[in-house]
Amino acid sequence: MYAYDYLFDFTVSFFMKIGCSRKDAIIISKVFLAAEIRGLPSHGMLRIKDYHELWKANRINVKPDIRVVHETPSTAVVNGDNAIGMIAATKSMEIAMEKAEKVGSGWVSTCGSNHFGIAGYYAMMALEKDMIGVTMTNANPLVAPTFSVSRLLGTNPVAVAIPANRQPAFVADFATTPIARGKLDVSEKKGEKVHFGLVQDQEGNPSDDPSILKKGGSILTLGGDYEHGSHKGYCMSAIVDILSAVLSGASFGPFVTPSVAYLPVPEKKVGKGTGHFFGALRIDAFQPANQFKAKMDEWIEAFRHAKSAPGKPKVLVPGDPERECEKRIMREGIALVPAIAKDLKEIAENLGLNFKIQ
Amino acid sequence: MYAYDYLFDFTVSFFMKIGCSRKDAIIISKVFLAAEIRGLPSHGMLRIKDYHELWKANRINVKPDIRVVHETPSTAVVNGDNAIGMIAATKSMEIAMEKAEKVGSGWVSTCGSNHFGIAGYYAMMALEKDMIGVTMTNANPLVAPTFSVSRLLGTNPVAVAIPANRQPAFVADFATTPIARGKLDVSEKKGEKVHFGLVQDQEGNPSDDPSILKKGGSILTLGGDYEHGSHKGYCMSAIVDILSAVLSGASFGPFVTPSVAYLPVPEKKVGKGTGHFFGALRIDAFQPANQFKAKMDEWIEAFRHAKSAPGKPKVLVPGDPERECEKRIMREGIALVPAIAKDLKEIAENLGLNFKIQ
Repeated sequence: MYAYDYLFDFTVSFFMKIGCSRKDAIIISKVFLAAEIRGLPSHGMLRIKDYHELWKANRINVKPDIRVVHETPSTAVVNGDNAIGMIAATKSMEIAMEKAEKVGSGWVSTCGSNHFGIAGYYAMMALEKDMIGVTMTNANPLVAPTFSVSRLLGTNPVAVAIPANRQPAFVADFATTPIARGKLDVSEKKGEKVHFGLVQDQEGNPSDDPSILKKGGSILTLGGDYEHGSHKGYCMSAIVDILSAVLSGASFGPFVTPSVAYLPVPEKKVGKGTGHFFGALRIDAFQPANQFKAKMDEWIEAFRHAKSAPGKPKVLVPGDPERECEKRIMREGIALVPAIAKDLKEIAENLGLNFKIQ
Repeated sequence: MYAYDYLFDFTVSFFMKIGCSRKDAIIISKVFLAAEIRGLPSHGMLRIKDYHELWKANRINVKPDIRVVHETPSTAVVNGDNAIGMIAATKSMEIAMEKAEKVGSGWVSTCGSNHFGIAGYYAMMALEKDMIGVTMTNANPLVAPTFSVSRLLGTNPVAVAIPANRQPAFVADFATTPIARGKLDVSEKKGEKVHFGLVQDQEGNPSDDPSILKKGGSILTLGGDYEHGSHKGYCMSAIVDILSAVLSGASFGPFVTPSVAYLPVPEKKVGKGTGHFFGALRIDAFQPANQFKAKMDEWIEAFRHAKSAPGKPKVLVPGDPERECEKRIMREGIALVPAIAKDLKEIAENLGLNFKIQ
């Protein structure tokens, strides 16, 4: 088990070693560790290797000049200058919140970025300011739209964080696909099959093989098949792609720049880097924040006290599982799977840093 | 077959007869007819009976004073004063667009409204102004969150309309459930079963019975079950409910005011009427509109030319099926099912209007 601080300090030292400022390295490390403690290790320490490889391949900019390239009182396009995603994203969300402070809402579409970790982190930045936070991002094309076998979309997550009063905040953070890529990797490593209805083979046949993406297969959109509304999941994923990438001038759809060095950069270039979309809605731009937050308590309580089907777990409110996980992990420590710890040790040795296998 | 103009004129005369102004009756009729020609008859002429019943029960206000009760440069809360939904919604979307014109984006949360027909209609209002339009609404609680048998959410649709250049606009308009209530009614009337994975019985068991809602059953969220991501559909549906109703002060979750007179108004009152949420993002608040629309053409073409799985139809772009339907129906006329035509004739006779069964 690793202590939070140990992994945090290592992550800071790694990003400083590859050239980031201390301030940037701290921002990045907060997002990596948030993924670990919120139970999303597929977006945590595992990704240090990806960033190390991208850095070695000279595919990221550790001294970016992140700037607003176009704006109005409530909107902006930010060019991330090929920054590490967490830096471009944090800056973009701050801009959205500044605009919301002034004119009620702020909406920022960001190009020239890279993988930014967990979407929920940025949406949650809005909570302490009594705002609703929204985050979206596009991602490596691995998802086929309804009826298709072409991989045109990413798992394109959406996160929305909404403050409450006595109750903890509502925090939804979800891929617009029935399964995230990281979970397929986990099943593959464990030698387990996955449920049918999540992925398909390259001919569009149902598959339970978690390694199907390496064989030309694809992830399905939320809903699974047309009869179960997969076209609705396709719509959601498409909306995320367009707001994040077409609106910002990032690469979109099948042309998204991969966030890992082992996938080649596509030949056709339609825009700059990965695209994100951020929104902030100031609650008191609609009604007094206290009144709203009391109503949110009522909303949350109605859902938390809903009747479960026989044999099913209790009904959850979005954000519950991650918050419970966070409490447990902060108490017990962070368990890294041996392969990841080994990778981190190798990287540390390469760069003259310390990392202990525990 | 009915001509568009015949049904349009009848709808105008009906709403004027129950007390609406001519201007309001025209707005309402446009939305009703849009549902018919876009292939969504469950939101079309069928609903005239619902509004007639609500009017007879004195549950709608045909002379509403729709007003902004709170606002900032980019946001507003609108109180629909218990208006017919189409009137409150059209006015709210106009306000969102005016704000977008001035400060880049506009976001309006509306309370005190009623069923507004098809969500896509309002999102599409943004297209002619080179804006992205967003519409959401809550609805009668018939949907159970993941693990639950309690009906806490509506089919809560989302619509997003995005302009393109040579290509027709991208128009996504979808319930956040695998099936809409209207489609269950259609299957029931035809005596057909539905697919498993769309609804459950009152104990949470899988069901293929389209009349299960009348037996205490519920609609599932998009994804169907936890293993297939139903918690993601639950998140979406919850976000729509909160933005539409908690943010505006409308009734939310299980307390939503039913949009049909045969369902009683819930005893517990947490807010005013049905809630909607409207957004407008001015494209040139992000980048020159022509540049964006050319990129959208590229996006749309990449998807329209995606490879279909063997035996599957061609890959569609959101908005394609409704647009094709519209062309066909404007050529061939509108077919009303006999039961609906009969209802309309009865209503007409009651009110001293003319309606011919064709």
